[in-house]
Amino acid sequence: MVTKQLLNGLPEDADLRRADSLAREIFSDVANKWALLIIEALGERTLRFSEVRGEVEGISHKMLTQNLRMLERNGLVHRTVHPTVPPKVEYTLTEPGRALRATVDLICEWTQSHLGHIEGARERFDA
Amino acid sequence: MVTKQLLNGLPEDADLRRADSLAREIFSDVANKWALLIIEALGERTLRFSEVRGEVEGISHKMLTQNLRMLERNGLVHRTVHPTVPPKVEYTLTEPGRALRATVDLICEWTQSHLGHIEGARERFDA
Repeated sequence: MVTKQLLNGLPEDADLRRADSLAREIFSDVANKWALLIIEALGERTLRFSEVRGEVEGISHKMLTQNLRMLERNGLVHRTVHPTVPPKVEYTLTEPGRALRATVDLICEWTQSHLGHIEGARERFDA
Repeated sequence: MVTKQLLNGLPEDADLRRADSLAREIFSDVANKWALLIIEALGERTLRFSEVRGEVEGISHKMLTQNLRMLERNGLVHRTVHPTVPPKVEYTLTEPGRALRATVDLICEWTQSHLGHIEGARERFDA
């Protein structure tokens, strides 16, 4: 059960129901393709909006806006507005964002090391 | 760039374009909340359809069917039909599925250890 997993190690006096609800919300927020790809892109360096869009192939303007805002709200991405004309807006990972990025790296490594297995499984399934 | 990350370490003579496309497909398939929660649920033990549904709070019949089929097609979940009347159908993780589950565990651990940070960030953002 994910809830159990999410709550392991919390102090006993924590408001468990509240923590449970929050943990589910956070998992739902970050466990999506676009959020994870944005975090991966920002793992390399600070980027402007258009640069993130260039790195995350296929993402729409709307999905990028929504996901950057969600990541900023959760404190995973920091948004800096430089007071130039026009303003220059940059996005960078916070420490928690970088920690999550390490797990995205692991999913990428898992994908790479199982390409052959998955391709074979698909061929058998589709046959 | 995710593609680069996904392709690190592939042999030079691999069909890179094909591998790139496959890696993107696989990432898109598994990097979604429902797929990851199903993998987490099956990490504990073999489950019947109704048992998976009981473990993954909020998932609809349709989403569970779609995701189990996708996971089976990619060789991450094995589906066993026992020739009883009525047939008993069980789902279990394959070795690659178990390997992916380890990364889901890390996302859960990350969530747990950053609950406080994220809650604080949200309060500041919403203020």
